[in-house]
Parts: sequence; structure tokens; C-alpha cells
Amino acid sequence: MIFLFLQIIASKCHLYDQKLNVITKCVILLFLCQQTIICWAAIAWTKNSPLSIEKVQVEPPKAGEVRIKMTSSGICGTDDHALKGLFPLNFPLIPGHEGAGIVESIGEGVNSVKPGDKVLTLPVPQCRECSACMHPKGNFCEKQDVVPSSGLMLDGTSRFTCRGEKIYHFFRTSTFVEYTVVPEIEVAKIDDAAPMDKICIISCEVPTGYGAAVHSAKVTPGSTCVVFGLGGIGSAIVMGCKASGASRIIGIDINEEKFPRARALGVTDCINPQKLKKPVQEVVMEMTGIGADFAFEAIGLSDTMVAAWESCHLSYGVCVITGVAPPNTPFSLDGGNAFTGRTLKGTCLGDYKTRDSFPQLVTDYLQNKINIDPLITHQLPFNQLHKAFELYRAGKA
Amino acid sequence: MIFLFLQIIASKCHLYDQKLNVITKCVILLFLCQQTIICWAAIAWTKNSPLSIEKVQVEPPKAGEVRIKMTSSGICGTDDHALKGLFPLNFPLIPGHEGAGIVESIGEGVNSVKPGDKVLTLPVPQCRECSACMHPKGNFCEKQDVVPSSGLMLDGTSRFTCRGEKIYHFFRTSTFVEYTVVPEIEVAKIDDAAPMDKICIISCEVPTGYGAAVHSAKVTPGSTCVVFGLGGIGSAIVMGCKASGASRIIGIDINEEKFPRARALGVTDCINPQKLKKPVQEVVMEMTGIGADFAFEAIGLSDTMVAAWESCHLSYGVCVITGVAPPNTPFSLDGGNAFTGRTLKGTCLGDYKTRDSFPQLVTDYLQNKINIDPLITHQLPFNQLHKAFELYRAGKA
Repeated sequence: MIFLFLQIIASKCHLYDQKLNVITKCVILLFLCQQTIICWAAIAWTKNSPLSIEKVQVEPPKAGEVRIKMTSSGICGTDDHALKGLFPLNFPLIPGHEGAGIVESIGEGVNSVKPGDKVLTLPVPQCRECSACMHPKGNFCEKQDVVPSSGLMLDGTSRFTCRGEKIYHFFRTSTFVEYTVVPEIEVAKIDDAAPMDKICIISCEVPTGYGAAVHSAKVTPGSTCVVFGLGGIGSAIVMGCKASGASRIIGIDINEEKFPRARALGVTDCINPQKLKKPVQEVVMEMTGIGADFAFEAIGLSDTMVAAWESCHLSYGVCVITGVAPPNTPFSLDGGNAFTGRTLKGTCLGDYKTRDSFPQLVTDYLQNKINIDPLITHQLPFNQLHKAFELYRAGKA
Repeated sequence: MIFLFLQIIASKCHLYDQKLNVITKCVILLFLCQQTIICWAAIAWTKNSPLSIEKVQVEPPKAGEVRIKMTSSGICGTDDHALKGLFPLNFPLIPGHEGAGIVESIGEGVNSVKPGDKVLTLPVPQCRECSACMHPKGNFCEKQDVVPSSGLMLDGTSRFTCRGEKIYHFFRTSTFVEYTVVPEIEVAKIDDAAPMDKICIISCEVPTGYGAAVHSAKVTPGSTCVVFGLGGIGSAIVMGCKASGASRIIGIDINEEKFPRARALGVTDCINPQKLKKPVQEVVMEMTGIGADFAFEAIGLSDTMVAAWESCHLSYGVCVITGVAPPNTPFSLDGGNAFTGRTLKGTCLGDYKTRDSFPQLVTDYLQNKINIDPLITHQLPFNQLHKAFELYRAGKA
């Protein structure tokens, strides 16, 4: 996982990074709070086009919205999938959804955060009113803009303009920008002591991966786990399995360059399915004799979803799907043995209620209860965003 | 669900139903315990052939086996599927797996039951030694003979012969016979006061259906449930949902003759999907606005498995599969929204550990904690087995 020091490019281009006295700065800031901000953003004009770093106009937050000065952002596989056009999205858009920043200004009625607060942007909101939010086990808030994605704020409009053209939001977070506007329900205030260059990944990667193991699946001590995909999410899953006391963790990836890090994180057996003569699930069955207690899919492919399911113990195996495939991507299970007891659990952000839980994850990190540092592979300034994507696409992140 | 008074045909044909004094009976019984018994059985010589009521030789139980004088048996959809050749089975066989009887004799080493004990035959064993049995949540014992099915006892041989030909067992229970031989691990001693003409369905239908709702899914008070298939299992599911406090139960079947009984059991909305202009899952979504809390599939068809999954709330819906499709029957879910939080739970016999739990279900019935009476639609003597299957196939059971 890569995160970006967005403030670096900000310092190069933005108005109030001049040497002004404090009072003048305050006056300008107050003025700016009501004003459109012009700042740098990474824009995807069409799918499969290189990200273009351009100046955008960022409107003030409307009622129930928060404008955030971004300080850091991770790159998630979903950003890459979006840029490649694997999901139906409106372009042009500003991608990025795994971010940390400081509240710059708030719209009418916002009361959970105030200017100056450190916050995470949340890919899935928690409105605390809908069926999912009101249910003890639900977290996929009805006001989410992931599937389907409008690319617009809750009122159906955008806050971004570039060269006179409306720019769409992404998951209503759009973190690859100096200033973004996010609904209050997609913002979580975090501890003032939080190191922003690290905890940005707690807005997606950590709960999605680590949380899938410790919270969704509730991996048990002594269990055998299988993790399909050893990228950022898969690595976080491995850490969650390890932290939960799994005694065997089988890691599966076609990129063997990921194996050393996977082993360092706790993987006991690495498998490259392209080097097998039979389906990987059969090999897992042979290795374990009975199948895995827990299998995790962290890629978003049909084949690996099926393989994860079929790697599980027939009676009590739990298959957790964290990967997101393009819409209408079927994956087929066998109805002839569905009844034997296995569980398939889809999970989004570790089933955590985002605003309620993510701040605690940040605090847990500050208190050394969880360690997210190994998940950070590179730190790059915003103006090296292309380089960051190159590293990601080369499987080095 | 239909159950059979097997003892009726037994009284017509069997040796020790003559008027003999008690001592003579005991001597004969002791003698018989070591002997092959000749009695009546229903044999399926090939798939899709009518059941043939014939005399069979039933060998004495070997070590770890129990010979049982059957008193009653239900007819389950799986029996019918087996006879139709939907599952790979060895023929000729004696079907039936949902039975109650009295232990006639025991093999060496058997210590959990003794002659004279009332028992249930269990379609899935509990060996208490394998990975499934040793796991707190497992119940699909590795020694099961359901999928795949050998039709043989644990030592690889059969106890049944007819006209000089080996007859295969079915799930190692074969209850459509006067005397059957079952591994001790597939026998559960039950309360002496148990009414055998009723509690036979606790060996399959009640835990599979009622248990799926109260034990596997743990249906919550005030929830909305959808039940696909309103036959025996579906009816038991409806009762479980009702007993758990579900406030809305949507019942789905293409046979509207099942609707009055379904309503009597607790179904609030009956739907015939053949009368809809759109997929039933879309209609459920419209009816509920948000999807069901729990959906149950009690048919064993790909389409209804998919429909059940897609009827569930995206974030917290739980889809329970109780139906058994023929092997290698694919059902396809959408990998594009698997991650949103739904759970697919396969369940066999309500996830109960069979020997540990079924006796308690019988006791619960005796203590009026559960009511299984509405699940018994017809009571027929064994020699009307054909009639029983006709009723089942006509959707009247």
C-alpha cells in the first residue's frame, strides 16, 4: 500500500503557504471558508487515461458537508480498477478514497467535526438512520455511493470544477486532491496525536483486510487460514489472521515477489497457482487434509472466489469475500454440496460501522494494540502519483 | 410430511407376532439377535422404478452396529430425489432415512444403546472423533454417507440381501424396512415416552427446517423472512421463523395448494413466482423495500438458491441453503456485490450435532416446547408406501 504526502504538492502551489502573519492567515482562512478554493487535483478525464494533475475549483461545503485539507492518501486496488473502467463510473472524476486530512470548513448543520479536526474520509458512510446503520450487524449504509456510483454528492451535484467542466466525485471521498468535500456521514474525527502519514490506510485497507480476519470472520486460535491475493488487503488479512492466533496461514498469489513480505507477516506456506498442475483448491485440500477453517478472497475475481469457497472445510469452513469484481461478474458454487455447512460471508470494511469504529482503530494503533506499519510499502509526494500507480501495477506495493 | 406405521405390515408377516408366551418370545428373540432376520422391505431395484415390497434378509449387526425394529418413518424429498436418480447412488437399495424404532440387537462394542431402547436413525452420523465432530460448529461428520454415497456400511459391506442379491443401504439408515442395521454413530437413544408415530420426523425434517431457522440462522424477533418452497422442510422453517418471533414471513411456492397450510403455520404473504412478471427476488425487494433479514431455500434448485440470496438485505441479509441439488449443479452469485455484507450459510440438519441434540428435540416435543404435529399431514401403513409417494409427488404432503 502506498500513501501520498499530499501536503508536499500543496506547499508548492497553494495560496496560504506564503509567509503571512497569523492574523492575516486567519482572515484569509475565514474568507476562504466561504469561498471556492483553487488547488491541485489528479483528474481521470476518461477511463484508461493517465491521471492529469490540474488545478480544480473546490466549492465550499453545503449543508451536511465537510471540506477537508487532505494530508495523505493510500492507493487501493479499487482506485486502480476504477481508472481502468472496470466499474461503471461517471468521468471525469477525481479518484482516491483512503484518506486522512484536517477539516478546513464545515457546512450548515455539521456538528460531529469542526475546522482543525483530524479526520479520516470514509469510503462507506454511516448515516445512523438507514436499515443497514440501524441493524446491529449492518454497515453498508444505504447512502453509500460505491455500487452503484453516481459520482455526485447527496444532493445530486458536484463540488469540483476544472476548465469549466464538472468533475465527478469518487465514493464521495475523492482524496487525490488538496481539498475535498465529503458528506459529514463519511467523515470520522480521529485522535489529535494520529500520524497522518500512516493512519490514512485505516480508512480502507486496515478495516477491509485486518478487520475481515479479526472482526468479520473472527479467526480462531490454532486455525488454518488461506488468503487469496497477497497485495495490500491480503497482507492486512494475513496480519489479522496472525494476530488472531492462526497456526497456519497459506498465502496464494501469482506474483512470487510478494512471498518474502507475506512470510514476514505470518504466511507459513506460499503457493503460486500458476505453477500447480491442479486447481489450487484441490492442493489446499491435500495440504490440510480437511480444508481450511477460514479462506479469504482479496482479489475480486470469480475464479478465486470459487477457489476460496472450495478451499474451506465442508462443514464449518468460512469463506470471506473482500474482493470486488465488476458488476454482473458471476461466480458459481455447487448447489450439490452447498448444504454441508460452509459459510460464505461478504464483507465490506470488515463489517465495521465506519464512523463508530474507525477512530478506535486509530487509537488502537496509537496504543500499539495493532501495528499497521508493515502495510506501508512506499511514501511518495503527491506529484509522484504516476510513480505510485506504476509501483502498484508492478505488484510492488 | 408422511410417516409410516411400519409395524402394521410387520404384524402381518413377521415370525414373532404370533401368540407365544413371554418366555418363548424371549428365547426366540435371543436367538434372533444372532441371526439373520427375514422381513419386508421396500426395494428400489433401479432408479425410476416403482418401489417393490419384498422379503429381505437382514444380517445381524457387526461390531459398532445396531439392528433396529423400525416403527415409523417419514418420507423426505431426498428419498424421492434418490429414487428418481438425481443423486449418484448404487442400486438396488432400500431408501428411507427419517426413522424411529426400537433397538433389536447390538454388535460388539456398542454401548450407547441397548436392546429395547427407543431410537432415531440419523441421516448424518456423529462419530465424535473427526474434524467436523470435534469442531464446535461442525456437524457434517466425515463418516457420513450422503455425498458421496457408497450405500455400504462403514466396513464396505451391506447387511441386506434379496433374492441372493446384495441390496445397498441409503445414508446407512434405510428406514423403509422392518429391521435395519445402522452404525452406532447414526443412532440416538430417545425418551421412552416418545410417541414413535410422530417423533420419527425429528430425525430429519424438524432439525433441517425448524433448526435452520432457530439454530442455524437464529432468526430474530421482528425480522422479515422469506421461505422458498413450502413442502415439509419449508413448513418446518416457517414454524421456526414464527417461533423465533419473525413479524413477516413470505412464503414462495409454485403450488398454491400449499398456501392455506402455510398461512396457518405463520406465512403472512404467499407468492406464486409463476404468476409474476419479474423475478421473484425483485418482487421481494419491492415488498420489503430493503430485502429480507433471512431467506431460506428448501427446494434444491439453482434458481431458487440464487433468488434466495438476492432476496436478502445487501448488508446484513442471511441466506440459508437447506435444499440439496444434484452434484455439480452450479448456482451463480454476482461477484460484483458479494462484498456488501450478505451471508450465505449452507446447513445440514440445522447444524445440530445429531446424537447430542436430537434426543433433546424429542424431549422438547414431549415437554411442549416445540410442536411438530402440524408437520404430519398423513399417516399410512407401510403397505401403502406407493400411496404415500403419490401424495408426496402430488404436493399434498
